[in-house]
Amino acid sequence: VMALRHYTLDFSLSAPVDSASTVPGLLSIFHEQEMTEIVHDTRGHGYLATLVGKNGRAFLSSLSPQLLNALETKLKALLNGNITRIKRLPALVRGAKVDRYLPTTDGRLVEYDIDRLVYEEESAYQNIKIFHSKQFGNILVLNGDVNLAESDLAYTKAIMGSGKENYAGKEVLILGGGDGGILAEVVKQKPKMITMLEISFLVIDGCKMHMRETCGDVLDRLKGDCYQILVEDCVPVLKKYVKEGRMFDYVINDLTAIPITTEPEEDSTWEFLRLILDLSIKVLHPSGKYFTQGNSVNMTEALSLYEEQLGNLSCPVDFSKEVVCVPSYLELWVFYTVWKK
Amino acid sequence: VMALRHYTLDFSLSAPVDSASTVPGLLSIFHEQEMTEIVHDTRGHGYLATLVGKNGRAFLSSLSPQLLNALETKLKALLNGNITRIKRLPALVRGAKVDRYLPTTDGRLVEYDIDRLVYEEESAYQNIKIFHSKQFGNILVLNGDVNLAESDLAYTKAIMGSGKENYAGKEVLILGGGDGGILAEVVKQKPKMITMLEISFLVIDGCKMHMRETCGDVLDRLKGDCYQILVEDCVPVLKKYVKEGRMFDYVINDLTAIPITTEPEEDSTWEFLRLILDLSIKVLHPSGKYFTQGNSVNMTEALSLYEEQLGNLSCPVDFSKEVVCVPSYLELWVFYTVWKK
Repeated sequence: VMALRHYTLDFSLSAPVDSASTVPGLLSIFHEQEMTEIVHDTRGHGYLATLVGKNGRAFLSSLSPQLLNALETKLKALLNGNITRIKRLPALVRGAKVDRYLPTTDGRLVEYDIDRLVYEEESAYQNIKIFHSKQFGNILVLNGDVNLAESDLAYTKAIMGSGKENYAGKEVLILGGGDGGILAEVVKQKPKMITMLEISFLVIDGCKMHMRETCGDVLDRLKGDCYQILVEDCVPVLKKYVKEGRMFDYVINDLTAIPITTEPEEDSTWEFLRLILDLSIKVLHPSGKYFTQGNSVNMTEALSLYEEQLGNLSCPVDFSKEVVCVPSYLELWVFYTVWKK
Repeated sequence: VMALRHYTLDFSLSAPVDSASTVPGLLSIFHEQEMTEIVHDTRGHGYLATLVGKNGRAFLSSLSPQLLNALETKLKALLNGNITRIKRLPALVRGAKVDRYLPTTDGRLVEYDIDRLVYEEESAYQNIKIFHSKQFGNILVLNGDVNLAESDLAYTKAIMGSGKENYAGKEVLILGGGDGGILAEVVKQKPKMITMLEISFLVIDGCKMHMRETCGDVLDRLKGDCYQILVEDCVPVLKKYVKEGRMFDYVINDLTAIPITTEPEEDSTWEFLRLILDLSIKVLHPSGKYFTQGNSVNMTEALSLYEEQLGNLSCPVDFSKEVVCVPSYLELWVFYTVWKK
């Protein structure tokens, strides 16, 4: 099955146009291509016609770039002086083998320079895809959301405190982080011990193979000189740490924005978020820091709700935030630093 | 005139589908909305129908989000197990008052979070627009190309040598730079003198009013303690400087990617580029540096051609390049540093 290229001409007019004065001129272009129109009865709501090519192929599949040029030129001539704006948009490709449209968090249509799918697995938790992008390298996409690309060291730096922290000799806890980006960067600073709690072995496995620019070789084994990766749901482990009175100098929450585990106590996404936050703050050393990603800077309501949660924790905290440009996100992203009051 | 929201359902199938088995089920959804179909003769090339609402309004304007949900659900049920991918794309808005689609240099469709046009002028050289974006602040757009947004300090830093240079006490020449970003940042480093050659007074005027985050107050007057702005075509001025034997420690070429002047000697864009490069290198101190923006990292052919030009200059040069993420560009961008061998 061939992908369909859907061309759109976007224009706006300074005054209404009578279809009788423009339509015949436009139709002549299609008639030259031996296309025939069926005019629909819109009862005065504008003019609508469907054009079908001579071999029965529909309007869209018959449109060549030359025909589009002719259409645009003719439209400009016919509506001379009345056009305030005219532009041909890049074709929308439908039914393509690889999906290049990964909308932003704030719902905008963006086309990625994705040319192939390099990994796909359906885990018990989520759909895992790794795409190749010409400019961003490989991109990890979980349940349709862009998580991290090999170009996105800016994400890892931001969620580690933007270069203002010193991890040498410290106890570090990473929640999620299956792409290995944070682990690979923290390891370089020679911490005392990093514990990483990642629920999905398949994410680790895919990234180990296809996100080497991000993870280097830290995912090649689950245990290194100064780190251990536990392939487990973080909630029960955090609860155990709380019971044992374990403390960390840094807790880095790199879980996906939408939680994927289902613990009995979570009535909603927000309650789950608060549960994770509460447990994380409980295992945080009094002088420690908790880092997390927030959301798109345009998701002002979600960000406000999150900040509200920070005021509802069993232990009072303060926070700061930073707006960072993560290359593959195509939208600015908010990161939080949280500490005990 | 209302903007039109164009919804698209993108899906792909693992096997061909007989329209007789799926179409009646789908049509029932439209019939419930009292829409009627006209079926087109595609002579075996698939199924094509146009649906018109009961009041004569066409298919698209009658589609409510509820109807789209119903359509998607029904399609999933009818094609159960045969769908490899299905996704509703964010609506393509056509005929909107403000154009939100500014395609990338490599021709991808991207929708900006633009909510209004704050400035527009048609100069002798180009169309100048400044849009407001929720996340990027104001964005300067010249002839439809995104030039710089208030969020784009990364661009200015990159074209100044990424923080590795010391401009204190230096002679600096800026070509273009009408948004004032480079001027504002270099001024902070107390150079001996900055000369900026910007052809368009209207660009300066628009940015002075609407790009304050970028230019601060440096555009408020054309002369400051350590800078002067000459509102002139850079080519004749550069030629005069060459004749006079003037030298600069830094030459920063911030001209738009596509040249806007028409000098008699330029047979093509590339010849013009080489002319500017040649003149710039001639006024560059032997130990000086020339900085410029290149192109999207995906425009590999254009980048190669540019690098070829660097080998054809009257004075032999070496160069290095860096890939930088400029927030509002939505594509990675290449910057060059050039110096005399």
